[in-house]
Amino acid sequence: MDKRKLSLVMDFYELTMSNSYFLSQKENQKAVFDVFYRNNPDNASYAIYCGLEQIIEYIQNLHFDREDIEYLASLNIFDSKFLEYLTNFSFKGDLYSFKEGSIIYPNEPIITVVAPLIDCQLIETMLLICFNHQSLIASKANRLVLASKNREIADFGARRSHGVDAAIYGARASYIGGASATATLLASKMFNIPYIGTMAHSYIMSFDSEYEAFLNYAKTYPDNCVLLIDTYDVIHSGILNAIKVAKDYLIPHGYNLKGVRIDSGDLAYLSKKVREILNKHGLFKTRITVSNALDEIKIASLIEQEARIDSFGVGENLITSKSSPVFGGVYKLVAIEENGKLKPSIKISETLEKITNPGLKEVYRIYSKKDKRAIADLITLKDEEVNLDQPYRFIDEKKPWKTMYFEDCYHEKLQHQIFKQGELVYSVPSIDEVKNYVRYQVNNLLWEEEKRFELPHTHYLDYSPSFYDLKMSLIKQHKYF
Amino acid sequence: MDKRKLSLVMDFYELTMSNSYFLSQKENQKAVFDVFYRNNPDNASYAIYCGLEQIIEYIQNLHFDREDIEYLASLNIFDSKFLEYLTNFSFKGDLYSFKEGSIIYPNEPIITVVAPLIDCQLIETMLLICFNHQSLIASKANRLVLASKNREIADFGARRSHGVDAAIYGARASYIGGASATATLLASKMFNIPYIGTMAHSYIMSFDSEYEAFLNYAKTYPDNCVLLIDTYDVIHSGILNAIKVAKDYLIPHGYNLKGVRIDSGDLAYLSKKVREILNKHGLFKTRITVSNALDEIKIASLIEQEARIDSFGVGENLITSKSSPVFGGVYKLVAIEENGKLKPSIKISETLEKITNPGLKEVYRIYSKKDKRAIADLITLKDEEVNLDQPYRFIDEKKPWKTMYFEDCYHEKLQHQIFKQGELVYSVPSIDEVKNYVRYQVNNLLWEEEKRFELPHTHYLDYSPSFYDLKMSLIKQHKYF
Repeated sequence: MDKRKLSLVMDFYELTMSNSYFLSQKENQKAVFDVFYRNNPDNASYAIYCGLEQIIEYIQNLHFDREDIEYLASLNIFDSKFLEYLTNFSFKGDLYSFKEGSIIYPNEPIITVVAPLIDCQLIETMLLICFNHQSLIASKANRLVLASKNREIADFGARRSHGVDAAIYGARASYIGGASATATLLASKMFNIPYIGTMAHSYIMSFDSEYEAFLNYAKTYPDNCVLLIDTYDVIHSGILNAIKVAKDYLIPHGYNLKGVRIDSGDLAYLSKKVREILNKHGLFKTRITVSNALDEIKIASLIEQEARIDSFGVGENLITSKSSPVFGGVYKLVAIEENGKLKPSIKISETLEKITNPGLKEVYRIYSKKDKRAIADLITLKDEEVNLDQPYRFIDEKKPWKTMYFEDCYHEKLQHQIFKQGELVYSVPSIDEVKNYVRYQVNNLLWEEEKRFELPHTHYLDYSPSFYDLKMSLIKQHKYF
Repeated sequence: MDKRKLSLVMDFYELTMSNSYFLSQKENQKAVFDVFYRNNPDNASYAIYCGLEQIIEYIQNLHFDREDIEYLASLNIFDSKFLEYLTNFSFKGDLYSFKEGSIIYPNEPIITVVAPLIDCQLIETMLLICFNHQSLIASKANRLVLASKNREIADFGARRSHGVDAAIYGARASYIGGASATATLLASKMFNIPYIGTMAHSYIMSFDSEYEAFLNYAKTYPDNCVLLIDTYDVIHSGILNAIKVAKDYLIPHGYNLKGVRIDSGDLAYLSKKVREILNKHGLFKTRITVSNALDEIKIASLIEQEARIDSFGVGENLITSKSSPVFGGVYKLVAIEENGKLKPSIKISETLEKITNPGLKEVYRIYSKKDKRAIADLITLKDEEVNLDQPYRFIDEKKPWKTMYFEDCYHEKLQHQIFKQGELVYSVPSIDEVKNYVRYQVNNLLWEEEKRFELPHTHYLDYSPSFYDLKMSLIKQHKYF
């Protein structure tokens, strides 16, 4: 992405607003925007935050070159002084974010931008594209891995993706979310993700016989021979020819049949049958890979049926998150500068869930000392002290009448500063660090009750009393409520 | 797209197969592959074919540069002679395709590639990405336009798209499918699509009052003033302030209030109420735009309720085709060269629908002379003569026992040659020609029964007797059937 020109990848209104701010001398007025989302895809309990690295690259590279300015001028909409301002534009604000790979929950600020109004608006669209797309796919990949009980999941989805970026950044997000490999070569190259891929049915069909095709493939790739065995008939043809090639060629030359892939039929039945046949011929190490419109529900069912599967190739259901293809991240104004001070601002609505959380905030994850699992997230005012050495009173917005305390807990601050006055002040982790961070959290910090697919436990999002009071006072000030 | 390097955007198996073909001296063996799909998104009767222009650009530019070759060599998988072959690779085959913007139906070959095996494989992934992504979005846009009874549909989806390409090429496909405009600026620039965009709620909230925000916007854009009126309360605040700004500023300065946008609440009720208030104040020309998680079902319902809406902004439901986010185009071998001749090849399956249509074929659309509507599509052998001057006997695969004829019909050949031995031999139409072609077909050639959303008529796909015989004879030759 770093070499592409993305300066005009934005909703047109970012520019109409910015031009108007500029003409109203509001270009230096500071504002605070939060990125958050309201619902987890697939009715899950949590999601995986992904895309931060691309957001950072985008912000670092954002500028408007001569071609951009000429194009914008040609629209006859923007003031020439504003276009001059854009010529010298670079992001000058602060940006805070959860670590990439974090487990995230609805209604908490994942990213917070504190910057001049124009800076805030110009980065909105790309922030949301990166956040929404990659978080969607990482979250889906994580569900697939959970369903498979930590077997291998490979991304086979490029051909069904929504364009090249969907394939490439989708592969990145899949890997971070828990996939082991991708079939998309450019993604493998760009992000150093293991690649995977052997042959299509067309390869088999281009030879006079299945045996000849397998033998030919074995001769080309003796040390990495994975054969697709369902072109004609898995049990009566494919597996028998695969074993014959193993015995005729691979084993005599000191190699093994590394694997077989089944891409159709009843995968539970066929995988068990194929395992039995392979074992009967002493091919205990040959791995069984399956594919064919798999999703987390089908994978969980295969595991439940004790299918003998070592690895799952997942296409459209991963790369489009077909069952839930939208991650609904939004970008909302939460404070605006007035007389040199940031004044909390609220967007009200008839439904409590759609009222924004006002002001500059801090988010903490609260862990139980006893079992080290995360029991809640807590939103406080930005500069509020949180001391968990003694019982800490918090408020659940849905039950404000109830008096509740965190006891025997410790907390972790979730937002980290990424940009300070436009300068990157964060050390970007490697993709494998991000991937390992996901795995660590899911395996060690999440309750099992949050991981189930049916009616998972809803993680608590609590407020400090001061933040709750601020939110309520702003709602009450509101003329139409 | 033309400036991006897409050479490694492919499934890894395209290269493992190609390397193996090369080592087996099969690199000049010709093959025929068809692109087709099995089901329309959203259980529709038809889809809109989109993405051909990008496929053409991709094929024209496809080559492997030094960096690619060095990377591939570093994997220690490919033969050095094969890599040398790739260094000199360019697509050398023939390619036939439906015109972009065509109405398409399941199981007919939309694109046919006749080329050396390696050429066929190397272009597979990008062909499917372009075809699947853009056909998906164009088809969805067309449904939205149908639902709106030809009102304006604008693409507001970038932020919820699956990455930058999904936003940009999605905007292109939306426009071709029938949308009038896009909010995605780069797409507007690249494809000359009308842009759209005014302000977000944050703009209103950054001012001390809604009136002040509206007035400020009106001063910046007096001749294009569309105001977002739902930040606080549409009826008690937004519309009143908008009218006040029209009367205080716009009208005295010789302008009109061009439009208002409503982004929340009951859009049927609010749009009627707002129309009434606008009219009461003499603002008959002010247009009403709505947005907020719209899709074709909601739009149809708003029209049904006689909502007073001039234009719909559609986000996630268009740009991801949320209700049906996968276009299942596949790429299947249908013939392979043997002794200098193309031999039809078939991929069999237990279900008739999944058996491929073998051989090099021709596809015709059959129109009734009486009402000029398309009554069926017909697949024949490539060189078969089709004479509709007299009754023409065809076969419906699902009722082969039935004797049926086309009478008083004429036919249109649907595939056109795009590449001939690697040379582009097709004049690529402009985006507006493609868009107009979609509109023409939908309005003039489709039966109303195919356009309804609930249980639409299934378009007939018929076979010539010779093609039917070929298919059946290949099935019968098959060992396991």
